[in-house]
Amino acid sequence: MKNYLSINDIDSLSTWVKEAISLKKQPRKFKELGSDKTIGLLFFNNSLRTRLSTQKAAMNLGMEVIVMNFGSEGWALEYADGTIMDQGTSEHIKEAAQVISQYCDIIAIRAFAGLVDKEKDEAEEVLNGFKKYANVPIVNMESSVGHPLQALTDAITMEEQNFKNDPKVVLSWAPHPKALPHAVANSFVQMMQKQNADFVITHPVGYELDPNITKDSKIEHDQDKALENADFVYVKNWSSYSDYGQIKSQDKTWQMTLKKLGNAKFMHCLPVRRNVVVADEVLDSKQSLVIEQANNRTFAAQLVLKKILENLN
Amino acid sequence: MKNYLSINDIDSLSTWVKEAISLKKQPRKFKELGSDKTIGLLFFNNSLRTRLSTQKAAMNLGMEVIVMNFGSEGWALEYADGTIMDQGTSEHIKEAAQVISQYCDIIAIRAFAGLVDKEKDEAEEVLNGFKKYANVPIVNMESSVGHPLQALTDAITMEEQNFKNDPKVVLSWAPHPKALPHAVANSFVQMMQKQNADFVITHPVGYELDPNITKDSKIEHDQDKALENADFVYVKNWSSYSDYGQIKSQDKTWQMTLKKLGNAKFMHCLPVRRNVVVADEVLDSKQSLVIEQANNRTFAAQLVLKKILENLN
Amino acid sequence: MKNYLSINDIDSLSTWVKEAISLKKQPRKFKELGSDKTIGLLFFNNSLRTRLSTQKAAMNLGMEVIVMNFGSEGWALEYADGTIMDQGTSEHIKEAAQVISQYCDIIAIRAFAGLVDKEKDEAEEVLNGFKKYANVPIVNMESSVGHPLQALTDAITMEEQNFKNDPKVVLSWAPHPKALPHAVANSFVQMMQKQNADFVITHPVGYELDPNITKDSKIEHDQDKALENADFVYVKNWSSYSDYGQIKSQDKTWQMTLKKLGNAKFMHCLPVRRNVVVADEVLDSKQSLVIEQANNRTFAAQLVLKKILENLN
Repeated sequence: MKNYLSINDIDSLSTWVKEAISLKKQPRKFKELGSDKTIGLLFFNNSLRTRLSTQKAAMNLGMEVIVMNFGSEGWALEYADGTIMDQGTSEHIKEAAQVISQYCDIIAIRAFAGLVDKEKDEAEEVLNGFKKYANVPIVNMESSVGHPLQALTDAITMEEQNFKNDPKVVLSWAPHPKALPHAVANSFVQMMQKQNADFVITHPVGYELDPNITKDSKIEHDQDKALENADFVYVKNWSSYSDYGQIKSQDKTWQMTLKKLGNAKFMHCLPVRRNVVVADEVLDSKQSLVIEQANNRTFAAQLVLKKILENLN
Repeated sequence: MKNYLSINDIDSLSTWVKEAISLKKQPRKFKELGSDKTIGLLFFNNSLRTRLSTQKAAMNLGMEVIVMNFGSEGWALEYADGTIMDQGTSEHIKEAAQVISQYCDIIAIRAFAGLVDKEKDEAEEVLNGFKKYANVPIVNMESSVGHPLQALTDAITMEEQNFKNDPKVVLSWAPHPKALPHAVANSFVQMMQKQNADFVITHPVGYELDPNITKDSKIEHDQDKALENADFVYVKNWSSYSDYGQIKSQDKTWQMTLKKLGNAKFMHCLPVRRNVVVADEVLDSKQSLVIEQANNRTFAAQLVLKKILENLN
Repeated sequence: MKNYLSINDIDSLSTWVKEAISLKKQPRKFKELGSDKTIGLLFFNNSLRTRLSTQKAAMNLGMEVIVMNFGSEGWALEYADGTIMDQGTSEHIKEAAQVISQYCDIIAIRAFAGLVDKEKDEAEEVLNGFKKYANVPIVNMESSVGHPLQALTDAITMEEQNFKNDPKVVLSWAPHPKALPHAVANSFVQMMQKQNADFVITHPVGYELDPNITKDSKIEHDQDKALENADFVYVKNWSSYSDYGQIKSQDKTWQMTLKKLGNAKFMHCLPVRRNVVVADEVLDSKQSLVIEQANNRTFAAQLVLKKILENLN
């Protein structure tokens, strides 16, 4: 594998999930693999789990880690071709990506959607800029349209539950005070489309995700109906896609509660706003998998880095 | 030892001090002890000595170090139970602490007093939140009410002077343009209460520290009288405790000078404002121990981490 | 070698360049040299190449690296002697430098010119403050008046071109929307003065660099004439030195183009503003050496650190 940019870079999800679970049992088994190799973690946005788990994953593989907050420690990059750069940007992605490729064997990037200009966000200028101009593998630590390390984590976490072959999995929208990107939901949907499962997406009308991503996945606007007999309920807020980046509802009745959850396992990528997105009673119950999801971030990242390193050596 | 939250976590101060002095002679002797172990240093406030010396201590023990500035690199945490999190906080300490525990074998935290709400500061919500919800040992890198790594450092530094058994030690308040927390003074007092010494606290009326901390330690409002025949003079500003967080005096006559110091050794935790807290002549004299105190920060931290690691393995 | 503060700390440029080229072939050859040694990289200004390449260089030598952004993670330092520190500065360089020397075996510092007060900038208070009070070697990662790691890099990059013995090298000013420091240009001039070359500086009238640095180097205000038959053209903006820190021209005709460049190799330290400082056609041509210059930053830094470490051991 060269890059890990989206769920589509996974050749066999079931094989990857098994391999990650095996890595989790012996996290330092491949600590020689990354010897004398450097990963650069470039943050254009804040991070807690991704920052710590990806650094931990790289260290488990014996890599050297350089962390850089591009916004506060570096400067604004230019992504457009042919620009007369006499305004706010100090360096073109062409130079930045080629240069960093000389210091790092792998570059991992976090750059969120701005949620103002749909076309610009979908162009994924930061991630695609690095992909285009870097000479080393690129890992997506959440971009405008996807968060494939999270979705791989989610697949690992579901597999660990040793469920029946075809569980019912529901992705349920939830209210939130801020406009949030679609990346986590998008990658979760794409991951579920690779699984044998009864998968349903539920959200208020007007919160349809990009139809090029949901494709023929089932959408049910009645949350109660969607949740019936669910085995896993993945809750996540996102802003409107059609009215791009807008908050069209903060309907509190969409908050996840124990009653709604039934016997299902609860999942969320974190950070989560308690008693807005989901009630305390859910997060504090044994049905919640959120802490184990966060744990598995390390092993999802470690599997991805391992595959890239094996391809480098 | 599980956590190092306050001076009270030291079972035998004299034994610890001896052990730290022994570590200082061979700082890399235990470089295998922390192998495959990770420490997370979480900063909710700025730092120079603590950041560098704790990182150095962990590296001396062979640990991997992750440094995170929570404010600028992460987001605001919620500490209250049951909150409807629709305001400024993005993640609850319950999740954050459990999650970080999965990436780090030890978590070290710096979170200063806000000096606005005494009750809130004394609740130590950041430190106690991590203590309550984390599954790994917690180290206090200065909290609202204590700075026990500094106080251990101070004990080491005094021991190195090979003084007579019962030295006279004075903690003397000094003026400062900003309102400062009580943490350093509190931990120094608590540490001195474990020593065989003639210990005196001196400050203007109105600057009494928390009586639950000073207990029956001697307080003398006449600085000259307090300083008579002192062997060690520890100078430090703090804001009012009774009029919580207020500056009640900037009386320049409380500044430490060579004349006042007499033959005593001068101590301060740094950073120090020259010619406000203490005259140049004192800091530039051979009586000043401040640089050696800073040096000993490494070995105080290293001893604490060593004890925690030994308990982990 | 003790410190690397300016080009003048290089005893034999040709020997250093050869040694750096040799290091580049086996970057991990000396990975034991820095074992149990720590370098502190202190940033008072932002950085991309310098931050990453110096960290990489240190890791190649097996050193442990501590990176600190002094502005955002620490506090303002006082540099003047005898100050009553009741204003914005919290710690004196005397303490800071001595203290950091106890945690780090080498200290590297980036502190740009402020471009407001020439005398203050030329006093190099940050770099010279650390030089004066630190007890360990100091490396200049770009100071007010010099960027000697860049100039060493440039010498390496020119040598790799296997040019005829005495190439014609032109340092050509270029327009820029912001007022920039003189450090890169200064160190390049000083480095060229140690080379066998036909060296010419060209810039609009009013952009003369410090005459104490240019000395008897040739200055030609007619850019076309200066560029005739050039082998290397180093392009760089700087603000006025005589009208200190002022922008006196943004004359677009000084932008470097392929036509002006002729058959010469193009050099720039990066970051570079495309189509302001230099046309896309130049940067995207095979005549551009900018990416290789950035690559060589690692080996320039590694050579400097290697020489310092050899002197320490």
